[in-house]
Amino acid sequence: MCEILDSAIKYGLAFVNKGKPASYIPELSKVDPHLLGISILQSDGSILSSGDYDKKFTMQSISKTVALMLALMDRGQDYVFDKVGMEPTGDAFNSIIKLETIQPSRPLNPMINAGAIAIDSMIAGNDINHKFNRLISFFRKICHNNSLWYNEKVYLSEKATGFRNRALANFIKGSGVLEGEVEEVLALYFMQCSIEIDCRDIAMLGAVLAMDGISPITGESLIPKNISRIVKAFMVTCGMYDASGEFSIKVGIPAKSGVGGGIMAAVPGKMGIGVFGPALDEKGNSIGGIKVLEFLSRELDLSIF
Amino acid sequence: MCEILDSAIKYGLAFVNKGKPASYIPELSKVDPHLLGISILQSDGSILSSGDYDKKFTMQSISKTVALMLALMDRGQDYVFDKVGMEPTGDAFNSIIKLETIQPSRPLNPMINAGAIAIDSMIAGNDINHKFNRLISFFRKICHNNSLWYNEKVYLSEKATGFRNRALANFIKGSGVLEGEVEEVLALYFMQCSIEIDCRDIAMLGAVLAMDGISPITGESLIPKNISRIVKAFMVTCGMYDASGEFSIKVGIPAKSGVGGGIMAAVPGKMGIGVFGPALDEKGNSIGGIKVLEFLSRELDLSIF
Amino acid sequence: MCEILDSAIKYGLAFVNKGKPASYIPELSKVDPHLLGISILQSDGSILSSGDYDKKFTMQSISKTVALMLALMDRGQDYVFDKVGMEPTGDAFNSIIKLETIQPSRPLNPMINAGAIAIDSMIAGNDINHKFNRLISFFRKICHNNSLWYNEKVYLSEKATGFRNRALANFIKGSGVLEGEVEEVLALYFMQCSIEIDCRDIAMLGAVLAMDGISPITGESLIPKNISRIVKAFMVTCGMYDASGEFSIKVGIPAKSGVGGGIMAAVPGKMGIGVFGPALDEKGNSIGGIKVLEFLSRELDLSIF
Amino acid sequence: MCEILDSAIKYGLAFVNKGKPASYIPELSKVDPHLLGISILQSDGSILSSGDYDKKFTMQSISKTVALMLALMDRGQDYVFDKVGMEPTGDAFNSIIKLETIQPSRPLNPMINAGAIAIDSMIAGNDINHKFNRLISFFRKICHNNSLWYNEKVYLSEKATGFRNRALANFIKGSGVLEGEVEEVLALYFMQCSIEIDCRDIAMLGAVLAMDGISPITGESLIPKNISRIVKAFMVTCGMYDASGEFSIKVGIPAKSGVGGGIMAAVPGKMGIGVFGPALDEKGNSIGGIKVLEFLSRELDLSIF
Repeated sequence: MCEILDSAIKYGLAFVNKGKPASYIPELSKVDPHLLGISILQSDGSILSSGDYDKKFTMQSISKTVALMLALMDRGQDYVFDKVGMEPTGDAFNSIIKLETIQPSRPLNPMINAGAIAIDSMIAGNDINHKFNRLISFFRKICHNNSLWYNEKVYLSEKATGFRNRALANFIKGSGVLEGEVEEVLALYFMQCSIEIDCRDIAMLGAVLAMDGISPITGESLIPKNISRIVKAFMVTCGMYDASGEFSIKVGIPAKSGVGGGIMAAVPGKMGIGVFGPALDEKGNSIGGIKVLEFLSRELDLSIF
Repeated sequence: MCEILDSAIKYGLAFVNKGKPASYIPELSKVDPHLLGISILQSDGSILSSGDYDKKFTMQSISKTVALMLALMDRGQDYVFDKVGMEPTGDAFNSIIKLETIQPSRPLNPMINAGAIAIDSMIAGNDINHKFNRLISFFRKICHNNSLWYNEKVYLSEKATGFRNRALANFIKGSGVLEGEVEEVLALYFMQCSIEIDCRDIAMLGAVLAMDGISPITGESLIPKNISRIVKAFMVTCGMYDASGEFSIKVGIPAKSGVGGGIMAAVPGKMGIGVFGPALDEKGNSIGGIKVLEFLSRELDLSIF
Repeated sequence: MCEILDSAIKYGLAFVNKGKPASYIPELSKVDPHLLGISILQSDGSILSSGDYDKKFTMQSISKTVALMLALMDRGQDYVFDKVGMEPTGDAFNSIIKLETIQPSRPLNPMINAGAIAIDSMIAGNDINHKFNRLISFFRKICHNNSLWYNEKVYLSEKATGFRNRALANFIKGSGVLEGEVEEVLALYFMQCSIEIDCRDIAMLGAVLAMDGISPITGESLIPKNISRIVKAFMVTCGMYDASGEFSIKVGIPAKSGVGGGIMAAVPGKMGIGVFGPALDEKGNSIGGIKVLEFLSRELDLSIF
Repeated sequence: MCEILDSAIKYGLAFVNKGKPASYIPELSKVDPHLLGISILQSDGSILSSGDYDKKFTMQSISKTVALMLALMDRGQDYVFDKVGMEPTGDAFNSIIKLETIQPSRPLNPMINAGAIAIDSMIAGNDINHKFNRLISFFRKICHNNSLWYNEKVYLSEKATGFRNRALANFIKGSGVLEGEVEEVLALYFMQCSIEIDCRDIAMLGAVLAMDGISPITGESLIPKNISRIVKAFMVTCGMYDASGEFSIKVGIPAKSGVGGGIMAAVPGKMGIGVFGPALDEKGNSIGGIKVLEFLSRELDLSIF
C-alpha cells in the first residue's frame, strides 16, 4: 500500500506544472505549486502517508461539508433544504445567475458559495464567536485534532477581497434566505474557509464520512448515518465544482475539493483520503490531487459505480 | 394648454387604481397612490401645472440622469464609457445576470442600478461629503431650486434594505468597475435617490435637457450640448426600465422614470415635463404618469419619431 | 451637399479595413469589403449619391422593417404585439436565451431574428407564394422600384446554412408564437432577406419612413403614420443589433442595418439615407456605413435628440 | 423479498394521485395514471415482480443510457466527450440556454435532450435504417428480449410535436456538434424514445449495468466494464433530470427516468430494478416510481453512499 501511495504521488507530480495556485485570494497565491501529498486513513484506524502530507493548508471549500453537517444537526433537513436546494448547477462555484433566474430564489446546493454562506447563517449560536466556537469544536472532534485553528492572514485576505462572496451574501439576504447580519455571516464563512489542516486531518474527516459517521479511531458515532450519506451524495454531484461530473466518471469516489489545494475523499466502508496539491486547474481543483486519486481509484478499484 | 393638462390628469387618474406604490423600499410604500400631478416648462421659460404638482416625492432613478451628466463632465466620455456601456439590457433595473454573462464584466448602461452605482463612484470629490455636496449643487443649479435636499427617512430606509444594490455594488467592485469603498458609494447613491423634488423641479430638469443644456429661465448653458444629447438618447433606449421600448412606441418622448412615482421627460427644442403618480405598474413606472404622457404626446404631437 | 457626401464616403473609407464581410452566410462572404456608397433622398424627392451607391446587395435585416409594416397592416397592433414584444434585448440578434427565460415565451422585439421570423408568419396569404408576392409588391411600392427581386444564390445559401434561424423558428413554433409550417415561414424569411437593392432603394424606404409614410416622389400615402412611427422607434431602440444604444448616442438617427452591409436611416421630416459598406464590425453592422452616418449627423446636425 | 416489493408498490400507490402523465407528447397523455409496477433482476439471474410490471410503456429518456453505450463503443470516449460534456446542468432536460452561454457550444451531458440527440448522431451506420437496426439489436441483446420494437403511434406523435427537440438539434447542427442530417438524427432519436418495454426489460438493463456489463442470465459480457461505470456515474449526476441531486440524497441508487413513466435503476453488484408509474411530478419523473425506490432503498439498504 505504501508503494502504491508513493507511485500515486510520483504519477501526480507529472501534472503539477500544468496548474497554478489560486490567485483570487492574494494570500493563497504565495504557496509552492510543486507540493503534493497524501494520507489515507483506513477503516481499522491505520494511517498511511506519502509526499508533502504534513504541509499545512487551508480548508476552503472542503469546510462546506462540515458546516453542512452541523447545520443539519442544528436545524434538521426540512429547515435546511427549504432554504438551500439539493441540485448540481452546471455553473461555477461563485456564480450568481441562478439566484436571479430560479424562483423562488435560493442557492441550488450547499457546495456552491451562495449555498455555503446560507448554511453558515443557520449554525446555532448567540453571536459569531459562539457560532465559530461551536463550529471549530465540531471540526476538531471529527478531525480528531484539538489544535485546529484558522489562519489569520488567509482570513484577513479573504475578508479584504471577497467582493463576490459579499455580492452573493447580500443577494440571498435580499431574498430572505440568509439569516442575521451579512458581515457576521461572511466573517464566519471566511474563518471556516481559513481553518488550517494537513492531509491527515482531512483523511480523518473522509474516514468518518466513509464509516457512516463513526470514528475509525475511537469507534464513537460523531455524525448520524443519514447525514453522512447526504454529504457523500453532495460530494458526488457537486463536490468538485463544475468538474464533478467528470470526476465521478474518471475517479468515482465521493470527494470535496478546496481552492487551498486540498481534496477530501470518502470511499464508503473503506477509507478516507486526504490529498494536497496547491496547483489548481481552471475549475479550481488540485490538478495533481485529481491525478493522484485517479491513480488510486484505478489501482485499488475504489469506484462506487 | 391648461385645459389639455387638466384633461391629461383626468385621463391618467382613471388608471391609478391598477398600480401600487413601490413596496421594496418600506418608506415609499406609505404614499397615497391616488396622487397625480404634472408641470410643463416651455422653451420660453413659462410654466404650467395641474393636479398634485406641488407634492414632494423622491427622485429615485430620475437622479441617474443628473449623476451621469456630472460624471461625464468630471471624467469625460472615454473614461465613463470604458466602465459602463451604452446598450439597453432587456432585463429588470436590478438584474445581476449580465454582470456575470458578459465579458469583460461591466454594467450595460448607466440607467440600470449597477451602472448608476458605478457612475456614482466616478463623481469627483475628496470624500463622500464633498462628492454629495458637488452633486446636490449640480442638481440645484439644473433644477433652479436652491432648497433641494434629500429625505432622511427614505435614505435610511433604502440603506437598511438595499441588499440587492449592495450585491450589485460588491459584484462590480470585484470586477474592478467600482472605484473606492462600496459602502461610501452606496451611501452617495442612496442619498441621491432620496433627493426630494416636485413636478416643477423635474420639469425644469427636462427643459434644460430639451434645450440642449441651456436654462430656459436664465439662458445660461448648464450642460454641454453633446452631454445633454447623450442623456436624451439613454432616456429613449433605457429610460423607462424594461418598458422603454413600449414607451418609445406609445409616447415617443425621451423620459426617465423613478420608483418614487416621478417621470421626467424632455421634448427636444420644445419643453420639459415633470409628472408624479406614485401608483406603479409591475415594471416600476408610474402607471398614471405614463397615461398622462401618452395623452399629451397624442394631443400635442410630441413624438420625436 | 454633394461635397458633404463625398467627404463622408472619404471619411468612412478609412475604417473599412477594420471590418470584414459576413462569414456565416457563405454567399455573402464573397463581396469586396472595400465598397462604400451612399444615397440621400430628401423630402422634396431629390436624390444625391456618392461612392458605390449603385452596387447591388441584399437587404438582410433591413427587410425586417418592411415585413413588420405589412404584418401590422394585415393584423393590427394588438395581434402583432401580443406575440412579439417591443423591448430591446441587450443580446445578439440570433440569441435564443430569452425565449426560454422569459415567461410567457415570446420574442422580445421584431428586429431580432426570432421576432422577425414570427412576424413573417403573420403576413396574410394563402400559401408561401401568395405571401411572398404580397411582400415583394409592398417592397416595390415603398422603394419605388418595380424590378426588386431576391437573389437566388444568397437565398439558397441562407436556406442551406440557417440552422440557428431554424432553431429559433422551431422554438417559437413549440411555444405557439409561430403560425403555420416552420419551413415555409423560414423560406419566406430567407427570400425576404435576399431581396436585392442598392443605396437608392433603401434611401427611398428611409425617406418614406421619414415623411410619416408618404412617398416624397408621388405624394401618395403608402404606410399609416402611426405605423411609420412605430418602425422608427424600433429602429432607435433595436435597429443596430446590440450596438443600438451606442449608435443612438453617436449618431442619433433611426436606422436599421443588415449583414449584407446596408444601413437604412430615416431622419424625421427631412430625408432618407441609404448606405452600403459590406465590411462589418463584430456586432454585424457596416463599419464604414456607421462612420459615414456619424460624419453626416455631425455635419448636418441630424440627431433627433 | 416478494413481500417487500408488494409493500413498496402499496406505499408508492399513495402518491400517484399527486402526479399526471406527460402532456407534451399527446400520445403519452392517454395512459392510466394509477398504474404502478416493479421488477427486480438479481445478480443470480432470478427475477421478482409486483404490481403492473407487465404493462408496456415507452423508454423515452431511459433509452439515452443505451444509445450512449453504443456511441461509446462505436467511437470511443475521446471522440464522444469532445462533443458532449460530462457535467450536470441544473437546468431542465430540454433547456437550450447553456448551448448559447457556454463556449465552445456543446451539450453539457448525454442525458439532457441536446446531448442525447448529439449522441444519436454518432451511432455508426450507413443510413437511418442501418443505424436504427444496430441500435435496436443492441437494446434487444442487453434487455435479453428479441421482440423489442418501437411504438409507431408514439413515434409519430413525438415527431409531429417535437419542436423543442428540433430547435435543440438545429442549434447543435449550427455549432458543428451534430453530424449528418438534422431530420434523420431526430427520426432516430424519436424511434429510440418510442421503444416499448415493460418493467422486466429495464430491470434487465439495470442488472447488466449493475454487474459491470455482464448479463446475469447468460454470463456474457455485453458492455465493457468502464463503459457501464460511466453510465452509472451519469445516472447519479444527471439521471433524474433536474431532480438528480435530490434523488441521490433520498434514494442513493444510480437511476435513469423517462417521461413514459419508467425508472431504470442499477444497484452496483446487486441488482437491476425496473419501475413503471406514468403519473409524473413537475420535473418529469415518475412520482410513484420514486417513492417505490425510496422504500426499497431504505428497506434493503441499497444506497451506494
